[in-house]
Amino acid sequence: MRGLMQDWPLLCSKVIDHAANEHPLREVVSRSVEGPMHRTNYREVRDRALRIAQRLESEGYGLGDRIATMAWNTWRHLECWYGIMGVGAIYHTLNPRLFPEQLAWIMNDAEDKLIFVDITFVPLVEALAPSVPSLKKVVVLTDAAHMPETKLKNAVAYEEWLKEADGDFAWRSFDENTAAGMCYTSGTTGNPKGVVYSHRSNVLHSMIAQAPDAMNLSSASRMLPIVPFFHANGWGIALTSPMTGASLVMPGPKMDGASVYEILTEERVTCTAAVPTVWLMLLQHLEAHGGDLPDLERVIIGGSACPRRVTEAFQNRYGAQVVHAWGMTEMSPLGTLCAIKPEYAGLEGDALLAVEEKQGFPPFGVEMKVTDDANRTQPRDGRTFGRLKVRGPSVAKAYYKNQGAELFDADGWFDTGDVAHIDQHGYMQITDRAKDVIKSGGEWISSIEIENIAVGHPDVAEAAVIGLAHPKWDERPLLVCVRKQGREPSKADLLAFLEGKIAKWWMPDDVVFVEEIPHTAAGKIRKTALREEFRDYVLPTR
Amino acid sequence: MRGLMQDWPLLCSKVIDHAANEHPLREVVSRSVEGPMHRTNYREVRDRALRIAQRLESEGYGLGDRIATMAWNTWRHLECWYGIMGVGAIYHTLNPRLFPEQLAWIMNDAEDKLIFVDITFVPLVEALAPSVPSLKKVVVLTDAAHMPETKLKNAVAYEEWLKEADGDFAWRSFDENTAAGMCYTSGTTGNPKGVVYSHRSNVLHSMIAQAPDAMNLSSASRMLPIVPFFHANGWGIALTSPMTGASLVMPGPKMDGASVYEILTEERVTCTAAVPTVWLMLLQHLEAHGGDLPDLERVIIGGSACPRRVTEAFQNRYGAQVVHAWGMTEMSPLGTLCAIKPEYAGLEGDALLAVEEKQGFPPFGVEMKVTDDANRTQPRDGRTFGRLKVRGPSVAKAYYKNQGAELFDADGWFDTGDVAHIDQHGYMQITDRAKDVIKSGGEWISSIEIENIAVGHPDVAEAAVIGLAHPKWDERPLLVCVRKQGREPSKADLLAFLEGKIAKWWMPDDVVFVEEIPHTAAGKIRKTALREEFRDYVLPTR
Ligand SMILES: Nc1ncnc2c1ncn2[C@@H]1O[C@H](COP(=O)(O)O)[C@@H](O)[C@H]1O
Repeated sequence: MRGLMQDWPLLCSKVIDHAANEHPLREVVSRSVEGPMHRTNYREVRDRALRIAQRLESEGYGLGDRIATMAWNTWRHLECWYGIMGVGAIYHTLNPRLFPEQLAWIMNDAEDKLIFVDITFVPLVEALAPSVPSLKKVVVLTDAAHMPETKLKNAVAYEEWLKEADGDFAWRSFDENTAAGMCYTSGTTGNPKGVVYSHRSNVLHSMIAQAPDAMNLSSASRMLPIVPFFHANGWGIALTSPMTGASLVMPGPKMDGASVYEILTEERVTCTAAVPTVWLMLLQHLEAHGGDLPDLERVIIGGSACPRRVTEAFQNRYGAQVVHAWGMTEMSPLGTLCAIKPEYAGLEGDALLAVEEKQGFPPFGVEMKVTDDANRTQPRDGRTFGRLKVRGPSVAKAYYKNQGAELFDADGWFDTGDVAHIDQHGYMQITDRAKDVIKSGGEWISSIEIENIAVGHPDVAEAAVIGLAHPKWDERPLLVCVRKQGREPSKADLLAFLEGKIAKWWMPDDVVFVEEIPHTAAGKIRKTALREEFRDYVLPTR
Repeated sequence: MRGLMQDWPLLCSKVIDHAANEHPLREVVSRSVEGPMHRTNYREVRDRALRIAQRLESEGYGLGDRIATMAWNTWRHLECWYGIMGVGAIYHTLNPRLFPEQLAWIMNDAEDKLIFVDITFVPLVEALAPSVPSLKKVVVLTDAAHMPETKLKNAVAYEEWLKEADGDFAWRSFDENTAAGMCYTSGTTGNPKGVVYSHRSNVLHSMIAQAPDAMNLSSASRMLPIVPFFHANGWGIALTSPMTGASLVMPGPKMDGASVYEILTEERVTCTAAVPTVWLMLLQHLEAHGGDLPDLERVIIGGSACPRRVTEAFQNRYGAQVVHAWGMTEMSPLGTLCAIKPEYAGLEGDALLAVEEKQGFPPFGVEMKVTDDANRTQPRDGRTFGRLKVRGPSVAKAYYKNQGAELFDADGWFDTGDVAHIDQHGYMQITDRAKDVIKSGGEWISSIEIENIAVGHPDVAEAAVIGLAHPKWDERPLLVCVRKQGREPSKADLLAFLEGKIAKWWMPDDVVFVEEIPHTAAGKIRKTALREEFRDYVLPTR
């Protein structure tokens, strides 16, 4: 027997319609790529998205077409997503920080037909276009007055292009499992792999993300997503904000400390989301220039492990609650968030910070477990680590064109490639990437745990731990540090600092100081490069 | 092209599994029907629900079978829901306050095969059973020690019955549109009509309900659903609490003022939900005996219009936020909630209370519009009222056995039978039931609006307004009041009190005082009975 409830497919157009109907005048504020601040609202965003959809369809784009965007977070980028999804086409966000060859490879793999691009990236698209034969059209996200000179054929200014549509259009309807978006993961080995979101997964992800123990967004929130839309589905915020009626404040191209401080305070942002590096820049700016954050209530930090001193500064100095979060492109992307359960209520100081260093627990809609290599579920004891596996309606079941099929279990669990433990209250903590874990004498050493502690040293700007081959122990840890400007910590200082904070056999065999640690386009430490760099390094204990 | 995200059907078993896995020790507290308080947690609830499922299946119950429950809110009732749903059977909640003939009619319509029943209602089931031939078994929700004498064949004590299952069982899997639950609406005309919830609609409803602008539940909440599970799907709380990890506190059979006060304070309840009459009883108790509500943060009030003085007392005297809500059995049941949008932020005193008298706005997942009789959408001006229509994934598309088909538009909108207006910020206010609206000289008068004001009179305990036939105007309003004990308000007092608060032509043509106003089993004013009672009453203006 079937239920007798309405067939109401979970389509992304319903999200922007909800915002336009129930929160029509709620502000959508952006720092424009051209410079000035720009203000609009959900009703206008919906109306312009309808015109994009109409215009796309009139040019023959529709169901299943991949349409690229290479753009900062602005109202125009937001409109594009909804316009594209509204005809059943697929937004494909490109990370402009990738190498041109990688971008061309990705665009060819996806067979992008049209690209929406910020003026900033027109030269990049000029360089790419000749090697992407599927690309038929370039829409530059600006108006006629700011349209740059370009040698691109078929390039048009967005506002001019949009003028030709009157908005008399209805969203197209289709099965909720239809593809809605696409984002490639920049695997450190092999080719990038495409993740394909569906309308259903996007809508469910936002319904998951809105929960109080997750992003906790409401119509009273003013949300600043600094995480770019092209990183891991932009943490889903382009959907969750309109779903909840939260005001959207968008940083455009400016994510330096001063600009972030300015937009946080002038736009009375209550909630924001970004990777730790952004927050380190903001905190440095605040230390240097003073200032406070009176409206800011919640800072969601993810993408890589959040250093304790960042959490401490926000909570103790600026009165904003930090919510540590973990996710992946393959998870739409939220996995866990570190809200405080009653079991941990009332903690203070270091005890609280120690909990907040964990990546937290999954909201309903994400299942997780930690297994050993034989796929046996590990106890939730806060110590025993293993492979972190997840399941859920907004978790990938495959990559585009069936790449990386080995990551998907027959029983439906996705192996995240992260190594983690879970404590007795269900709080997960990432201890490593599976490929970065250090195997010493048959036991695992968590590189991230050592890094987390090392960056707490007052003279250290950044730290990375890698495993180096060792004749007796298989691998032993090397600690690589970048010193803070004007500071001169020594190897002995660092080792003394670690002493007592980690197990004896976890102590790095050596400490080296470098000018710079290599990063991926998404700002994460590129450990493969680091291992390459230190391949022939000889550890003193050898 | 389809998305490549996991096929993870939205089944209710996932909700209780999530609670058991991620919030295993979170408390589930009940006042037992036998008397003492009972404490358990989500892990135990899940484990016992698995045993119920196992037991049901071993006796041949499964996919599509209707299984009745006639019970107060307790941990046992909760377990039954999940056990029943976990084998693909359908929980069918029965309202014990209905007349036995109505209950028999409903049970025969549903063809219930088994019933879980509280000891309180064993005599009722004894009376019913002979006229319900489909009923094969009666499980009495108690242990052997408390098992009442009964002449019922096939009656067994729940705890004994459960002992025969070891819990080695896996939830059954099926399409998410499979029926999960059933609840009859007590239509004032015609036979009761069955609403059939699906797993999908139940899960989506809870994902909608958890949002901060809706029920705002998290792992830190301690939720007391006073609204019985047998009223309008128990407002969905049996699902939303485990989904969010909120502690559940359940009142069992005791919903009088003293008992509610006791459980609110002793169990440190932070959030609670019930109809206005429950709150009137609590407030009367507090007025008489003193006391405060230090832990209570939020009171969700719906089912009928919440009088302003209730909101005022909670907010101004006891420091708890009132969230006025509107819904229907056909909507799983949430429709709108009155959170405060930024447009109304900062209001105080009467201005705030006036907003909170509205039923609020829909969360994502509920669409609403107000139309005139020709189905034209009315302006959102806060004045123009008409038929309230809704759409969404947890709104009914039909009744069981296709009764009442005329209420479902071809375009997918469900006509709620309520009359309402919507203001410029999207706040909906119910002005009447369509069948109760008073048609005077071609214009509509809102009976609820007059009632709301009349109960604000310090000497009035309850008020109802009905339309009486009138030779010139078609219908004219009659105000029927119950006086507070020991008070003697006159017709002139009431009319003077209304003066200036409503349009002149809305003024009741007469005021009468009665001992009692008739109510439905769900505690709502039974206007049909009242109109019947006053059918021959002659209005002075006639
Ligand atoms: N907050 C409210 N204010 C006024 N009427 C309400 C409210 N909540 C529910 N109702 C009425 O109750 C009906 C649903 O009844 P039921 O399905 O029995 O819960 C709605 O159609 C409304 O007429």
